[in-house]
Amino acid sequence: MARVVVDVMPKPEILDPQGQAVSRALSRIGVAGVADVRQGKHFELVVDDSVDDETLHRIAGSLLANPVIEDWTVTRV
Amino acid sequence: MARVVVDVMPKPEILDPQGQAVSRALSRIGVAGVADVRQGKHFELVVDDSVDDETLHRIAGSLLANPVIEDWTVTRV
Repeated sequence: MARVVVDVMPKPEILDPQGQAVSRALSRIGVAGVADVRQGKHFELVVDDSVDDETLHRIAGSLLANPVIEDWTVTRV
Repeated sequence: MARVVVDVMPKPEILDPQGQAVSRALSRIGVAGVADVRQGKHFELVVDDSVDDETLHRIAGSLLANPVIEDWTVTRV
């Protein structure tokens, strides 16, 4: 068994209303010094050793992320 | 300026319906070998060098995560 982390983020050119909401909330509660916040998704998978990287990228691109508006990284941990 | 990643995950004892939905979808599309999926949130912050780790954990625990049901990690990248 192996642990795999998939992080999914909105592409840089895509607006990120969730991240912007966090930014505004930080100003409101008086936290200074945070220039930018972007929010994405974090998946932790437990997979058999038979699952190769190609399969992991296929899972990420078809189920975990929307390739039109999101990028993802696959990391074995 | 520094880049900080905050990963927020449901605590182990908390049910994760999003992750379970992904697990079921994987079986449905015929992907075998994935034993478990859990879904959380991934934040990327750009902060001034003046923002210390204590402030980052305060931000994570008050705005990014719900400490009752979620754990988080703060990583400078």
